[in-house]
Amino acid sequence: MKFKIIMPLLFLSLFLNGQTKQDSTMLKRIFNEELSHGHSHENLCELCKGYGKRLSGSPVAAGAVEWSFNKMKSYGFDTAFKQEVMVPHWVRGEKETASYHLSSGSKPISVSICALGGSIGGKINGEVIEVTSFEELRALGKDKVKGHIVFFNRPMDDTQINTFPAYGGAIDQREYGANEASYKGASAVIVRSMSLGINPYPHTGAMMNYIDSVAKIPACAISTQDAEMLSKDLKQSSKLSFNLEMHCRWFPDTLSYNVICEIKGSEHPEEIIVIGGHLDAWDMAEGAHDDGSGVVQSLEALHLFKELNIRPKHTIRCVFFMNEENGMRGALKYAEVARRKEEKHLAALESDEGGFTPRGFSFEARGDTLKRFFAYKELFTPYFMDNFRSGGGGVDIGPLKALGTILIDLNPDTQRYFDFHHAATDMFEGVNKRELEMGAAGITGLIYLIDKYGL
Amino acid sequence: MKFKIIMPLLFLSLFLNGQTKQDSTMLKRIFNEELSHGHSHENLCELCKGYGKRLSGSPVAAGAVEWSFNKMKSYGFDTAFKQEVMVPHWVRGEKETASYHLSSGSKPISVSICALGGSIGGKINGEVIEVTSFEELRALGKDKVKGHIVFFNRPMDDTQINTFPAYGGAIDQREYGANEASYKGASAVIVRSMSLGINPYPHTGAMMNYIDSVAKIPACAISTQDAEMLSKDLKQSSKLSFNLEMHCRWFPDTLSYNVICEIKGSEHPEEIIVIGGHLDAWDMAEGAHDDGSGVVQSLEALHLFKELNIRPKHTIRCVFFMNEENGMRGALKYAEVARRKEEKHLAALESDEGGFTPRGFSFEARGDTLKRFFAYKELFTPYFMDNFRSGGGGVDIGPLKALGTILIDLNPDTQRYFDFHHAATDMFEGVNKRELEMGAAGITGLIYLIDKYGL
Repeated sequence: MKFKIIMPLLFLSLFLNGQTKQDSTMLKRIFNEELSHGHSHENLCELCKGYGKRLSGSPVAAGAVEWSFNKMKSYGFDTAFKQEVMVPHWVRGEKETASYHLSSGSKPISVSICALGGSIGGKINGEVIEVTSFEELRALGKDKVKGHIVFFNRPMDDTQINTFPAYGGAIDQREYGANEASYKGASAVIVRSMSLGINPYPHTGAMMNYIDSVAKIPACAISTQDAEMLSKDLKQSSKLSFNLEMHCRWFPDTLSYNVICEIKGSEHPEEIIVIGGHLDAWDMAEGAHDDGSGVVQSLEALHLFKELNIRPKHTIRCVFFMNEENGMRGALKYAEVARRKEEKHLAALESDEGGFTPRGFSFEARGDTLKRFFAYKELFTPYFMDNFRSGGGGVDIGPLKALGTILIDLNPDTQRYFDFHHAATDMFEGVNKRELEMGAAGITGLIYLIDKYGL
Repeated sequence: MKFKIIMPLLFLSLFLNGQTKQDSTMLKRIFNEELSHGHSHENLCELCKGYGKRLSGSPVAAGAVEWSFNKMKSYGFDTAFKQEVMVPHWVRGEKETASYHLSSGSKPISVSICALGGSIGGKINGEVIEVTSFEELRALGKDKVKGHIVFFNRPMDDTQINTFPAYGGAIDQREYGANEASYKGASAVIVRSMSLGINPYPHTGAMMNYIDSVAKIPACAISTQDAEMLSKDLKQSSKLSFNLEMHCRWFPDTLSYNVICEIKGSEHPEEIIVIGGHLDAWDMAEGAHDDGSGVVQSLEALHLFKELNIRPKHTIRCVFFMNEENGMRGALKYAEVARRKEEKHLAALESDEGGFTPRGFSFEARGDTLKRFFAYKELFTPYFMDNFRSGGGGVDIGPLKALGTILIDLNPDTQRYFDFHHAATDMFEGVNKRELEMGAAGITGLIYLIDKYGL
């Protein structure tokens, strides 16, 4: 027990005394280069403005793949290649509308909706029944639900300081709502958007696949503002009649790609450290925070290595994963290939929590490895990003865990994320240049240390 | 020496063991209340949309004073009052324009300018001479400067992680540029805006008073984008001719007010803890970050005390200072009255660094008092605002230091501040509700602890 405590302390002590100055100088060089001459913001602009609604399977996503591949090649890294992956192809369709009448013959009240990713289309009219949980839904008799539109209206918990657990606490409605409601005979589902506060934007996101044993019913999101209004009107009107029309549909799976580049390791080229984000984005806006920021930051790490003439010991690989939003096919394919080729992935770092001011990193690691990472913490104090914690492991790197890979997430500040996430607001203009750059530099600094000192 | 070290440790230890749980529960209550039911965002909206360009001496500022006083009264605190203060009254005037010609007869290139606060108006035409420092200006012969427009073009240092020192490193150009250039016979001054990155917005701000020994000359800011363009064109054209026209002027001092409210202390009503920001704002936008956020957060602290039924031991006073931007008259008057009345001000906390996600506090305190404050740090870790440091002391509370008052600043994240500061971009929409609320709750929590445990 004592030995276990002393070893990391010894490492910490040696590390702090021997290497801190040299490493802090290198980190300062990395941050200076990025903040003065970084490419991440310009690259994000190109991606967002050129290939905004790059949902998997779409022609825009195909364009984004080519842009990414050409951009990677332009930097002259050791390799740049595309990895084939078949992806789902769901299309929202041009028109999605909704309105309701407080009573027969009254003026329609218009509501902004967006289909949940994966929903079928349809034209539905029905009475609305509001619930805030599956327990509440299950407690209702089938006759109370049959033919109705179920309205899931449980807000995200705004007292959570980290907004991701608040999202986690509400997302069941979006993911499982349609199947649960259909089981009771509902004709459609309306879900309160996963956003904090009251705003006029519906937020989309994937729903779980329809299950075979129940009918497929349309599912859409409404804004928190409209959810409040609808809930209030439901309390006052027993004859409220809701109409929705959506034209979304499924197409056959489509060939797409993960886009990959790497700088070969000088000492251990067969040992790989991955940095990545996802290239696909929802079809509501430009996917600037989700996850344009993550991919340009990942690419920027390799760019900074090259620009500062840092030759890594291990191979540093940047992966733009395809299809995180509605299928995870790129992540699964990447891990499958890695397993088949018996590639050794030491660590994988993901940036997929928005391009906000970075606060630190979370590590899916244990014991001495975790303590070794924590020993780097103070090097990040001058950059106000020394909140190092255990946990995490993003969606795209998750499948690598089974290969023994250490997983790391960049953790930006979370307060603004759900203003943008999956909504029409997620535009390039919502990303601050310096906040984005701080994240890119922080990732580069951490990867530099991991490459230098190993696990 | 040892004794001095042990005492704070002892306090720390007692504090951590005995009080942490009770205090962390109270902090959680404060944050919950603010994040779910806070008034700060709504109040900021009222202030910004009702009284946007509330520069000292203006009718809008007078309206903002009345709004503030009525708002304070509406909360039913123990007292609410206005404190008279004479403030400067400078007016930008309707029209300010600039353009330049690359050569005689060429098409004019339009430039956005804004007069620096305090400048005289004028209509000037002249050749431009670019410098990046006063040393460079001084090295030039008077004949090279005489009749010319001096263009100060030293950017803020974008490699600074905290952006305030970067601002501090560039601000001499705005503050002293006109006097320095006039001494050499210049006809006007153009200053590169104090903003990071390249953007199209000119940023105003106060210049120092003209000195009597040299001629008063007009001074304006141009955007970083236009500064880059002008600098490039100056290198290519030896005949560049610049025109500027500004109609700003001074009026006699005007009666205005600091606006103040307080909750009386139950045990030491004569001992005061002040929380404040400044009510006045530049006339370019709505003063949302600078410093609408600070005043609504300060007021919110008292509101939360009342809402949660916390009866403080000491008197908690909220001050909306007038005229921080161009005169500091409110701050000076407040301290003068405090001195005359022999009021005992224990501590003063200012929020004037924008309504961004809070990172912690800085303390202008020493020895055991500082260590006592630092012992509270871990209570703020769950809110990601535990970056406690020595230093600071904002402009408005600064004069209280001479009365022995401990000074405290709320320190939000600084990356975005100079996108908004003194520019047309500083609108209500640029403030995120949760980030604003986190700051308000953090202030309230810290003041709660200081009131409870004393200095």
